[in-house]
Amino acid sequence: MTTYQNWQNNETLIKDLQAVEEMINQHIRIKNKQIEAQIKQVTNNHGKMLRPLFVILTSKMGNKYDHNKTIALAAAMETLHMATLIHDDVIDQADTRRQIPTLHTVKDNRYAIYAGDYLFSICFNMLSKYTEEFDILNYNARTMEKVLIGELDQLEARFTPPKSVKRYLSRISGKTAQLFAVSCYIGATESGASLRDRQRAYNMGKYIGMAFQIIDDILDFKGDEKNVGKPVMADIRQGIFTLPLIYSYQQQPDAVSALLKRPKPYTDETIHALEQQIIQTEALDAAQRLAERYTHKALATLSKLPEGSYKAMLGQIISDMLERTL
Amino acid sequence: MTTYQNWQNNETLIKDLQAVEEMINQHIRIKNKQIEAQIKQVTNNHGKMLRPLFVILTSKMGNKYDHNKTIALAAAMETLHMATLIHDDVIDQADTRRQIPTLHTVKDNRYAIYAGDYLFSICFNMLSKYTEEFDILNYNARTMEKVLIGELDQLEARFTPPKSVKRYLSRISGKTAQLFAVSCYIGATESGASLRDRQRAYNMGKYIGMAFQIIDDILDFKGDEKNVGKPVMADIRQGIFTLPLIYSYQQQPDAVSALLKRPKPYTDETIHALEQQIIQTEALDAAQRLAERYTHKALATLSKLPEGSYKAMLGQIISDMLERTL
Repeated sequence: MTTYQNWQNNETLIKDLQAVEEMINQHIRIKNKQIEAQIKQVTNNHGKMLRPLFVILTSKMGNKYDHNKTIALAAAMETLHMATLIHDDVIDQADTRRQIPTLHTVKDNRYAIYAGDYLFSICFNMLSKYTEEFDILNYNARTMEKVLIGELDQLEARFTPPKSVKRYLSRISGKTAQLFAVSCYIGATESGASLRDRQRAYNMGKYIGMAFQIIDDILDFKGDEKNVGKPVMADIRQGIFTLPLIYSYQQQPDAVSALLKRPKPYTDETIHALEQQIIQTEALDAAQRLAERYTHKALATLSKLPEGSYKAMLGQIISDMLERTL
Repeated sequence: MTTYQNWQNNETLIKDLQAVEEMINQHIRIKNKQIEAQIKQVTNNHGKMLRPLFVILTSKMGNKYDHNKTIALAAAMETLHMATLIHDDVIDQADTRRQIPTLHTVKDNRYAIYAGDYLFSICFNMLSKYTEEFDILNYNARTMEKVLIGELDQLEARFTPPKSVKRYLSRISGKTAQLFAVSCYIGATESGASLRDRQRAYNMGKYIGMAFQIIDDILDFKGDEKNVGKPVMADIRQGIFTLPLIYSYQQQPDAVSALLKRPKPYTDETIHALEQQIIQTEALDAAQRLAERYTHKALATLSKLPEGSYKAMLGQIISDMLERTL
């Protein structure tokens, strides 16, 4: 089930993303065909394929372009992302992702843990086969490290007072923005871009990822289950206190704190009261403004990159991501 | 807590293995010091460090030797092994490993999943930083793939009739022997050994790993909890039917089958009856003989490798592994 966005009716891009999907499928080869099919069901149930999209677009930045390599590196990024999603779903005990039952629900946690690990190994298999830059491999390994440090911090911080915007930003920088940053970096590097432009591509990706995660966290408050693909306010129920709640807490520490101290799991009434607090303090607007700031930083960085037709498309995608409702 | 074996009172080897431990510790850097300490407690509670040992010894095979690189690659292999152990312990819900409570017991499953993932990324970080051979990175990624295919197959095969020696061998080849094989291959490759000798080192490692896992599976029937570090006959209780049981089944299919069909979890009485079957059919001796055959193949392959002082030590370790009781 594919959910391409409006901005993805560019035929070349669609074809490239289909090639990415095929490349991932080709690499998943398990003697036990039942297990193989189950893992492929997960990888084929992808979302917007944003990370591969950024690899593909930034790979047009320099004057070298190798189609197969680009597709493989884009596939590696998507596979890494999927591996983390499978483990996230085990950890959150999420029953569905994008309306499809999650692997640990269809089989069990044990399968899902190994399947995630398997996808990690596929990612590094692809990378080591297709790139000639050790730098890229090392960036990837360190990206994966930062993703996990972010996730571990998020676990540790569960149900602790939502005080620090700084800690929130540092966490989402690890768990989300790094993978966008490295996707743009990989494309730029393989295209033969200058060191300075690679660094810019990395920064642009990081800003894109920050905005993306903030919007994601806003949608957890605003979206309905059918659109967002997971229950609304799922984060708060799990003790993950994101930016809107932090802003709300900063304005009304006593009221928010009293609500958060209530017995867990929170009742629907508590969740509703927290929702009211967030509305009253206009915390969603404040969060939206921060996402806008990151989007503007991403666009400003993009404007400094070498000219080329890829830039208009990238700019449009970055802007559209800010407006997304799912 | 370190449990070096007798054959490890070679001072240089002990120093090298300590350097491996330090190298791993240096790479585990997490802002949250509590999480960092917990992960280090796992990595410092290592066992015999066999995989790094094989990297170190085979790195003396050719005429290039780079100490730092060898230690780092050995550390990468141990880290990969530990990552798989952490996930295995979650999957088996094992309470302790080597008498120390497992990570998922001290914290919870969620920590353990991310901590294992984190160690995978550390492994690839070390590899990409210290090797200049893409080949090694690709072998590693594919090794990890095979480990996981083996583990997934083991999950899928739980509680199914223990019929096929072939499937058992294929599974342990993936889940255990590959990591030994790649450890020897890495050492040989980085030492500048010829392509033929690298391949031999790989095969030797594979035979070592096969013998190692068969002995491990025998010890699950023979050892007592204090020595082996896990409850005896833990595998059967979990539906993992290993070589001794397969041999026993081949001789007495009806009797063994009837016992295995009993309600799960098996009672102590069922476990005892299965134990008696295995004793009567002399299945442990037969398994031991297969482990010996693999050991002899490993020694025969070793004998073809280039001369050097490393060979005597390797030969002794390979022989000692066959006699181990823990």
